[in-house]
Amino acid sequence: MIHNKTIDAQLNHRSIRKFKDTTLNKEQLETLYSVFAQTPTSMFMQNASLIHIIDPEEKKKIRELCNQKYVGAEGDLFIFVVDLYRNQQIRKQLGKDDGRVHTTDIFFQAMEDTLLAYQNVANAVESMDLGYVPLGTVNDHPLEMLKTLDLPKLTFPVLGMQVGVPDQKPQLKPRLPLQFTCFEGKYNKDFDVKELRDYDKVVTTYYDLRDSNRRIDSFTKQITGAKLDNHKTDRDELPEELHKQELCLDWK
Amino acid sequence: MIHNKTIDAQLNHRSIRKFKDTTLNKEQLETLYSVFAQTPTSMFMQNASLIHIIDPEEKKKIRELCNQKYVGAEGDLFIFVVDLYRNQQIRKQLGKDDGRVHTTDIFFQAMEDTLLAYQNVANAVESMDLGYVPLGTVNDHPLEMLKTLDLPKLTFPVLGMQVGVPDQKPQLKPRLPLQFTCFEGKYNKDFDVKELRDYDKVVTTYYDLRDSNRRIDSFTKQITGAKLDNHKTDRDELPEELHKQELCLDWK
Repeated sequence: MIHNKTIDAQLNHRSIRKFKDTTLNKEQLETLYSVFAQTPTSMFMQNASLIHIIDPEEKKKIRELCNQKYVGAEGDLFIFVVDLYRNQQIRKQLGKDDGRVHTTDIFFQAMEDTLLAYQNVANAVESMDLGYVPLGTVNDHPLEMLKTLDLPKLTFPVLGMQVGVPDQKPQLKPRLPLQFTCFEGKYNKDFDVKELRDYDKVVTTYYDLRDSNRRIDSFTKQITGAKLDNHKTDRDELPEELHKQELCLDWK
Repeated sequence: MIHNKTIDAQLNHRSIRKFKDTTLNKEQLETLYSVFAQTPTSMFMQNASLIHIIDPEEKKKIRELCNQKYVGAEGDLFIFVVDLYRNQQIRKQLGKDDGRVHTTDIFFQAMEDTLLAYQNVANAVESMDLGYVPLGTVNDHPLEMLKTLDLPKLTFPVLGMQVGVPDQKPQLKPRLPLQFTCFEGKYNKDFDVKELRDYDKVVTTYYDLRDSNRRIDSFTKQITGAKLDNHKTDRDELPEELHKQELCLDWK
C-alpha cells in the first residue's frame, strides 16, 4: 500500500455526525469553494452549484426535511446542486432557445459535475482535519428543499454535507473485500453469496463494537432487508419531481 | 487560501491526455482499489464497481466506442460502473425478490456511490504524481460497452479514467468566478450575462495559449454553441438504454 497524507486520509474516512460548536472561517470557505470550482467538468459546462446555508430558520427547515438531528446543527451545512439554470439563462439572455438543457444526457453530465465536486470538497475538508457526513436525504423532498433554498427550475439538490470539527471518533466501517468491487480485466458475475460469510462476520463485529444497544446486522442481512425490500417511499416520486424541475424531459 | 498537499493538487488539477509508456504497478493498483472501496456509500449498499481493462483487444474496442485516441493507449484504463447486479444476486441467492433495485431512487444512490468513488480515486492518482483524464464517452454507446466488458443487467458504465505518468503539462483551465457557482446563503437567480465578460476574455486567452491553431471560444460562446444546441446524438438513447439494463424501471 502506498501512503501519503491524501491517501491516508481517504483510507481513514469515516462519517462524522457529532461536531464541536464552531463554524468554518472565511479562509476555509474560500478554499473549499476554489476546490469545488477546479473539479473536472463534463464538456466544460460547469453544471454544479454549491449553497452554504446561513440562515438559522432555513437550517431548521432543512433539518426537518432531512429528518436527521445533526443537519444544520453544529458545524456548517452545504447543499450540492445540479444546476442547468445558469447555462439556460446564459443562452436566454443571448437570444438562444434552451437547446439540450432539458435532456437526460445533459442531466447525467450535470450529476457527474456535481458529485465529482462533492468528493473533491470532501477530501479537502478531511485534509484540513475536519470531518463531514454526506446527506442523501436532501432529495427525500426535493421540491420543498428547492423552495426553501429559493432555487429555480432546472436545479436539483443532489447531496448535502454537514462539515465541522469532529467531536467523535467512530470505528472505521469495513467495506466489501476488494475482489467483490474491483476487477482485473474480468467482472465476476458468478460469485457465491457464501463467499461473503467472513465479511458478514466483520460487519456484525463492527456494529457490535459501535453500539451494543443497536440491532446488529451483517452486510447480506442489510441487502436482503428493509432498505431494498419493496415498499412505498417519498423517493418513489424522484422521476416526477425531476420532470417538475424541467429536467430529463426526454424520458419516456 | 489554505495550502496543503491535497488541496494544492486539487487546485492544480488539469486533465492529462498524453502519458508516458508505462503502466501502474501492483502496489499502486491495490492502493487505488482500497481508496475506491473506502469512499462514502449511500445506505451502505456499496453499489459501485471498478473494472481495470487489461486485454489489448478490449482496449482497442473501447477506444473505438469512445472515439478518443488516448483511451486505452499509454497508461491504464479504468471503467467506473453503477452496479446493482451484485446486490440483486445476493438477494436472489438468499431467496428474496429484486425489491427496489430497479427503481430510480436506488439508481440515483448508485450514481452517487460511483461518482464519489471516481473523484476519490482521481485524488489518490494525483497524490501519487500521476495524472488522468475523465472519459464521459464510456456511455456514448453503453450497451456495446457493457457487451465488451461482459457485464450483466443492472450495471451501467458511468465514467472512464485513463491514468498514467503525465507526458505533458497543460495550462490550468480557468473556471467560472466563484460568485457564479458558490453561494453564501442565497442563490443568485438574477445575474446578468454581461457580468461574464471578463471571464470570457480569460477563457479566450486560455485557448489562444493552448493551441493557436484551434478555434478560440469564450465560455458563453460554448454555452450558446453546438454543445447545447438542439441536435440528435447517440446519447439521446440513454433513457431507453437504462431501461434495457433494467434500471429506473419506475420512470414513466
